[in-house]
Amino acid sequence: MADLVKEFNDYRAKMNEKLLADDNKVIKRIFNLDTNAYMAGALDVKTKELLGLVASAVLRCDDCVKYHLETCHKEGVSKAEMMEAMSIATLVGGTIVIPHLRRAYEFWEELESINS
Amino acid sequence: MADLVKEFNDYRAKMNEKLLADDNKVIKRIFNLDTNAYMAGALDVKTKELLGLVASAVLRCDDCVKYHLETCHKEGVSKAEMMEAMSIATLVGGTIVIPHLRRAYEFWEELESINS
Amino acid sequence: MADLVKEFNDYRAKMNEKLLADDNKVIKRIFNLDTNAYMAGALDVKTKELLGLVASAVLRCDDCVKYHLETCHKEGVSKAEMMEAMSIATLVGGTIVIPHLRRAYEFWEELESINS
Amino acid sequence: MADLVKEFNDYRAKMNEKLLADDNKVIKRIFNLDTNAYMAGALDVKTKELLGLVASAVLRCDDCVKYHLETCHKEGVSKAEMMEAMSIATLVGGTIVIPHLRRAYEFWEELESINS
Amino acid sequence: MADLVKEFNDYRAKMNEKLLADDNKVIKRIFNLDTNAYMAGALDVKTKELLGLVASAVLRCDDCVKYHLETCHKEGVSKAEMMEAMSIATLVGGTIVIPHLRRAYEFWEELESINS
Amino acid sequence: MADLVKEFNDYRAKMNEKLLADDNKVIKRIFNLDTNAYMAGALDVKTKELLGLVASAVLRCDDCVKYHLETCHKEGVSKAEMMEAMSIATLVGGTIVIPHLRRAYEFWEELESINS
Repeated sequence: MADLVKEFNDYRAKMNEKLLADDNKVIKRIFNLDTNAYMAGALDVKTKELLGLVASAVLRCDDCVKYHLETCHKEGVSKAEMMEAMSIATLVGGTIVIPHLRRAYEFWEELESINS
Repeated sequence: MADLVKEFNDYRAKMNEKLLADDNKVIKRIFNLDTNAYMAGALDVKTKELLGLVASAVLRCDDCVKYHLETCHKEGVSKAEMMEAMSIATLVGGTIVIPHLRRAYEFWEELESINS
Repeated sequence: MADLVKEFNDYRAKMNEKLLADDNKVIKRIFNLDTNAYMAGALDVKTKELLGLVASAVLRCDDCVKYHLETCHKEGVSKAEMMEAMSIATLVGGTIVIPHLRRAYEFWEELESINS
Repeated sequence: MADLVKEFNDYRAKMNEKLLADDNKVIKRIFNLDTNAYMAGALDVKTKELLGLVASAVLRCDDCVKYHLETCHKEGVSKAEMMEAMSIATLVGGTIVIPHLRRAYEFWEELESINS
Repeated sequence: MADLVKEFNDYRAKMNEKLLADDNKVIKRIFNLDTNAYMAGALDVKTKELLGLVASAVLRCDDCVKYHLETCHKEGVSKAEMMEAMSIATLVGGTIVIPHLRRAYEFWEELESINS
Repeated sequence: MADLVKEFNDYRAKMNEKLLADDNKVIKRIFNLDTNAYMAGALDVKTKELLGLVASAVLRCDDCVKYHLETCHKEGVSKAEMMEAMSIATLVGGTIVIPHLRRAYEFWEELESINS
């Protein structure tokens, strides 16, 4: 089942490398900001990753959801915490979030299977 | 051609079962509301399913569109009625709805092929 | 209380006149399509106006919601029917639709006060 | 300057009362869910309110942002924490979030002026 | 009629000053990027401002539309060019863009009245 | 690698043919408008295609992005110009545009490989 995670990470890594090798400076700086914004500050990393997860879910970006599920999992977010975050996303964003919730749940199960 | 319908329903059923087995109460209640909202009331079921279809189409949620196409088909919505609903969605939501219209049309053809 | 309706219609009429006097043909044709799409066809006008209302509500366009509330009201849509359509919009589109629902309800009350 | 907060709360309270007096059950249940979803669970109230704030900001719903700013403020969220949450929203949601950030900042200043 | 432009610019300047005085670095860097991205490069400034206008219009951000209308006007974009850009936005984004088109047209007329 | 382009064009052509053979007049007229809107006028075709690309990217419609990448490529848009347009889309639309940027970049590389 771990194929979903590997496939996502491989494609993402391959294309990010190409984008960063391209000489568009605005894109490079957005990537750089994307790293800095989730570093510990007034809020801790775990909270920030949950914020990134919910923002991605209500905007219905599957790849962004996967990325933040992976970082949430690394930061020790529990399944119950992830589901509470996703339930707020589904309530605020509506039932159109449900198909993304299904795919998020499947991805989370895979993340747990890899690390167990 | 009926593979699209079966594949959609199988994955949806499998993941919904998992989500409902999870103990997040907000998600369970949203699923429950999702069933109740489309029951006959001041508006009949057919009209409500068309409303669900158009809402899903302008928000560009393919899985939601497929779900409502299937319920519309069961409620006896004709192809011409479905297309008028989708034409309003395409006008209100813009040409970015067209790729979803293509996939909706393909799914509808498959629904008709199953039931003929 | 009828001020909301009058203010909305006056500004809309004034600016539409200017836009149609401008010589951009694409805009003119979109306006023309917008009239045709809601005419009776396989679906009746009332159903189409409800579809336009729900599409406008989930895309959270207050002016579009107001326009369709006004046409729904003219087509004899009851308050209960309007509320069922808006409840589907709120469920599909999420709680971010609620502020638009509040303004829609206020506008509907005003429409009823004018015509009573 | 406290007028923004009062005006927002008064209109919201007046219209919510009307919506809940209306007999649409789906709307009532969505309102009810909206209360339950932000109660303490696996995540604490403060984290959930920050999640609600970010979801509202990326979906660019000013009224929803105001509501969550107010509850965040009550839960003891600091200005620096609020700004970090809003910076994630602005990064994920893009520069179109900036006008909402301006209004959020103004509203937060007003919340602080009331309570100081 | 020039009040719309002045009011928009005054509020925007006042709040941007406050946001930049706040010590959130991610926000500061997004503002900085926002300036750099529209500078001449492979594409000229006029084309980039038209791109910013259309992006703002389809995402239905009135304040962003106003900002880019103002910069387009400064760059010598003609009314016919602005209207062609907005017609593409209205076609791609759908009839929900029309209320924003009305407000854009009004703002453009005001920009022309100031500079004539 | 040219498979992505062929697969996209084949499915698009097949379904567009079906949609145009269907007798829904609103859909036919939207397709017709979609052709006219990008013709040379006050703005040239290349600029209009870049506007279509950015509108598609911020609305995160992969198929629309692919279509405009293809027409941009035919109009002689350089990779640097395409990347500047996409960088504006990513800044305005936020980091949720990045997954679409990755797929756009891959598609562009394929377009270049076909024509070299």
